[in-house]
Amino acid sequence: MTRIAIVSKPSKPELIRLLPELVDWLREHQFEPVLDRESASYMVGPAAAYKGESGSLVGGLEIRDRVDLPTAKPVLVIVLGGDGTLLAVGRIFAPSDTPILSVNLGSLGFLTEVRLSSLFPTLDSWCADCHAIDERAMLHTDLWRGDVCIEGFEAVNDIVLSKSAIARMADFAVELDGMLVARFRADGVIVSTPTGSTAYTLAANGPIMVPGVDALVITPICPHLLTLRPIVIPGTAGLTLRIEGPKGGQPNSTILTVDGQQAVDLRIGDELRCRRSEYAVKLVRIGGNGFFEALRTKLKWGER
Amino acid sequence: MTRIAIVSKPSKPELIRLLPELVDWLREHQFEPVLDRESASYMVGPAAAYKGESGSLVGGLEIRDRVDLPTAKPVLVIVLGGDGTLLAVGRIFAPSDTPILSVNLGSLGFLTEVRLSSLFPTLDSWCADCHAIDERAMLHTDLWRGDVCIEGFEAVNDIVLSKSAIARMADFAVELDGMLVARFRADGVIVSTPTGSTAYTLAANGPIMVPGVDALVITPICPHLLTLRPIVIPGTAGLTLRIEGPKGGQPNSTILTVDGQQAVDLRIGDELRCRRSEYAVKLVRIGGNGFFEALRTKLKWGER
Amino acid sequence: MTRIAIVSKPSKPELIRLLPELVDWLREHQFEPVLDRESASYMVGPAAAYKGESGSLVGGLEIRDRVDLPTAKPVLVIVLGGDGTLLAVGRIFAPSDTPILSVNLGSLGFLTEVRLSSLFPTLDSWCADCHAIDERAMLHTDLWRGDVCIEGFEAVNDIVLSKSAIARMADFAVELDGMLVARFRADGVIVSTPTGSTAYTLAANGPIMVPGVDALVITPICPHLLTLRPIVIPGTAGLTLRIEGPKGGQPNSTILTVDGQQAVDLRIGDELRCRRSEYAVKLVRIGGNGFFEALRTKLKWGER
Amino acid sequence: MTRIAIVSKPSKPELIRLLPELVDWLREHQFEPVLDRESASYMVGPAAAYKGESGSLVGGLEIRDRVDLPTAKPVLVIVLGGDGTLLAVGRIFAPSDTPILSVNLGSLGFLTEVRLSSLFPTLDSWCADCHAIDERAMLHTDLWRGDVCIEGFEAVNDIVLSKSAIARMADFAVELDGMLVARFRADGVIVSTPTGSTAYTLAANGPIMVPGVDALVITPICPHLLTLRPIVIPGTAGLTLRIEGPKGGQPNSTILTVDGQQAVDLRIGDELRCRRSEYAVKLVRIGGNGFFEALRTKLKWGER
Repeated sequence: MTRIAIVSKPSKPELIRLLPELVDWLREHQFEPVLDRESASYMVGPAAAYKGESGSLVGGLEIRDRVDLPTAKPVLVIVLGGDGTLLAVGRIFAPSDTPILSVNLGSLGFLTEVRLSSLFPTLDSWCADCHAIDERAMLHTDLWRGDVCIEGFEAVNDIVLSKSAIARMADFAVELDGMLVARFRADGVIVSTPTGSTAYTLAANGPIMVPGVDALVITPICPHLLTLRPIVIPGTAGLTLRIEGPKGGQPNSTILTVDGQQAVDLRIGDELRCRRSEYAVKLVRIGGNGFFEALRTKLKWGER
Repeated sequence: MTRIAIVSKPSKPELIRLLPELVDWLREHQFEPVLDRESASYMVGPAAAYKGESGSLVGGLEIRDRVDLPTAKPVLVIVLGGDGTLLAVGRIFAPSDTPILSVNLGSLGFLTEVRLSSLFPTLDSWCADCHAIDERAMLHTDLWRGDVCIEGFEAVNDIVLSKSAIARMADFAVELDGMLVARFRADGVIVSTPTGSTAYTLAANGPIMVPGVDALVITPICPHLLTLRPIVIPGTAGLTLRIEGPKGGQPNSTILTVDGQQAVDLRIGDELRCRRSEYAVKLVRIGGNGFFEALRTKLKWGER
Repeated sequence: MTRIAIVSKPSKPELIRLLPELVDWLREHQFEPVLDRESASYMVGPAAAYKGESGSLVGGLEIRDRVDLPTAKPVLVIVLGGDGTLLAVGRIFAPSDTPILSVNLGSLGFLTEVRLSSLFPTLDSWCADCHAIDERAMLHTDLWRGDVCIEGFEAVNDIVLSKSAIARMADFAVELDGMLVARFRADGVIVSTPTGSTAYTLAANGPIMVPGVDALVITPICPHLLTLRPIVIPGTAGLTLRIEGPKGGQPNSTILTVDGQQAVDLRIGDELRCRRSEYAVKLVRIGGNGFFEALRTKLKWGER
Repeated sequence: MTRIAIVSKPSKPELIRLLPELVDWLREHQFEPVLDRESASYMVGPAAAYKGESGSLVGGLEIRDRVDLPTAKPVLVIVLGGDGTLLAVGRIFAPSDTPILSVNLGSLGFLTEVRLSSLFPTLDSWCADCHAIDERAMLHTDLWRGDVCIEGFEAVNDIVLSKSAIARMADFAVELDGMLVARFRADGVIVSTPTGSTAYTLAANGPIMVPGVDALVITPICPHLLTLRPIVIPGTAGLTLRIEGPKGGQPNSTILTVDGQQAVDLRIGDELRCRRSEYAVKLVRIGGNGFFEALRTKLKWGER
């Protein structure tokens, strides 16, 4: 039977009543629900996440670790949470074609435009094929140490290289398609997709990039070089960020963070090679693109 | 005979010796030089621009108004000046396929990377086909008043809408593909190509855009709305800027400036509809792209 | 009899009912009202300002030009308007000791914290001496041309030197106590009091200065020199701004504006010598200082 | 005999020859040198700092820990280093009246304007009383946990509250003289003296404050609240910064740093109460105030 996955944010009391309703709705519409552990907890009992084995059936419901959900090949993922939950799900489902229907439980998000109260009408629209898919470009980053690519990362929003708290600063070099762009000392540097430009990049004084732009933006954080500015590069460019200092600093004085959620210690000499990912996040949209409305609502634009 | 056009900046003593040498070089290489009035002045006499009719022959040299140069169908335009002269020539030659060899007489420009001392070696390279063409996207803007498109403009760098000195501010609305982006009160607003992002946009705190990005950037100037930020949009988007105030202000209290060189008075209700131009500036490059070197040199990047 | 002056903003329908009530209240409390022309218009008839001679009595009411009000030696000025009206009155009453009770008719202002609905309770408090006087430092500027001081200005908020719309930029030199601070090219430069730091300075990216700071802030507008920053100087310092360009520009290509209300054409070589004024604006405050509340309300601070 | 203290930066080969010359010069001029351990190392041997007991005599030279130097009651401290060394010495000597003669070994500093080559002429001028004392206001901060003041700090430049690397952000509340200024989420917040305004504050987009201003500046680092700005407060104000989050975060997720050199872990609820210190750094100046020259040199001001 066609499956639909459900992913939930923990500690949201309103989901205790909603989850059973959602499961019923899916079954009535001939879909088989697959739940992550947090969603299962709202169904079967206490607030703590369900601890059984991934893939087990509990009360007739299939329950999986989030990272195992793509192998269930759902036709849709319903995310009940906020932008943070969506970022995690977006990275997990990046290599699949599964679209994501993202419902915000709290304040309007830049990515999660459907309110909880509109969940079932939105699902009806989706069933009736009255929806669009909003593809959001992702960022792929390979971490190279010496001649070895140690690990690869997919980001929906951004990667951040930052000094750790013990360090006073870090030194970075930025190269584009093999040409030096700049060397600088700073607290850190952000590489962001258009989608991420309304997140940390905005706090670091970077520009807003409309979702459809085929570009990435590099934004230094508190650079000592006062002429340095955010730099917008083509999505197709090959970008390299190299950790050049602090020289003689303690090991692990610089850290890589992916979407504000995954953290990796870096060493002097490490290179982060970034490019637009071959994957994209596929968001279900009912009605128009709410990007500018979210901008105006969240940033209080439009008042005189 | 194959023609090459020469355009010069006025009041540059070093051109008095150079122009005759350049004309000789062109003739020796079987090219027929066509000069604008400023160039002619360096050949035939006093500093003041040549006043004869456009298209006339003076001492065997064809002399034309700058705007008439494209009809001479030259295979190359040599610009002896700086970024300012190049902007004017770029707009004039936009609809043609003629590439521009731009020589800077003063300090390094973002567009004019060839120094005067390298002029003849660069021409040799060009003859030997050892050059690349660096295409720079332009910006097309139509000025609509009511239902009528009054005038169209091509810009290499940017268009600026700004309050006139008598006005205290202006009110703008920005729409993208028919959707409202923002309404705001400000001193002005800039729409810039990637090429223009290192010009006025930079002074107004906008991001730097690498030349190849298919994007435009909208940068408000001293906006009263503190959350407003520069906004990067796809090059293919249809952008509309509408003058909404000052209400009850004097007529002509807002002005449109194209590349900092052409000025047009605007009225309340006027709409500027912008999109990437169908034309591009075609710059002759010998050696690599000097964009990042110009950034580092002009902005003093790369120092610790 | 002890006089109280009333100054009103034009075209505010709510004042047609209020003015007679206010005049009655003042007379009942043994004060003789003196009205500016706009206030008189609300009393005697059509919306247009009263046109009779300054100092004449109309229906038993003394009516004066705004600039003549201080010679009536009122013990209080009631300003019915907004921050703009208050700026004008503040400059006129600067040399006097008369305090100002400022009532905002529209949205909360940084200077006008009393709402129209609180006018009479506030006047009661003032009569009962239950008020504080909030002194706001002003800025004095002398315009020197050659060896001659042409004119002096008092500003509540700021003075602005800016290029006129026809000019592409202006060149400025800034000196402090005879020492060069910086030379730069920009659209303009603002010198602001702490009070003015929440006005145009804020739009030009300057810092907020709490009212009690004995300091002025110099904020360049769109400077071409990217390392230039707002500069906070002691209130006691002697500041000189000199117009150094555009060289060969048209006359009057730079303009001085005082509090956004008075404009004066400047010439190359003109010097503006600024220092904290010997005068201050004296605002009547009932209840605490609402500065931070105004900041949070107007700038939407305090939200997570 | 009258004592003069010498403090040196480690690992500066040029000091191996200079230190003995300086000691000789002092003795010839009837001063008794007192050396910190780093200075002693340049006299007596290997590059490593001298390890003997503080206060011991080595080859007739008194050697002390840096923190013990004030008890030797020197009439002058000579600092051979850079701005970093001076910050440390400034904090140690804050409660004394001892002036500091600061010599820069590297690039021009904002505080250390005397070059090594001018050391002896400068000392001659000092002996001849041809010098001025440049007093620089310091910042005093008390760390309160509950009802207890745990520790007090003196800063020459600034204090910084910042999230640790593991935390995603921190929540701060700022109060001035008991009134709420703002609550915000950010990477951190800086409180700086005028002297510190050219240090980290500048990288975080704060204003430059001329040394004589009686003010402090509060600069948020990457605030999520886009309308937040640097805030200049009177030097006499009582400022409180309170750590309000991250709620449920790990302990020690926020850190206090003093002059970029001392670090202290903070807890939710901790309050930092700041005011201008009763102490000041007293710098020996020969010739004029080089503040603006340092600004222009280091920030490349003054070019067109």
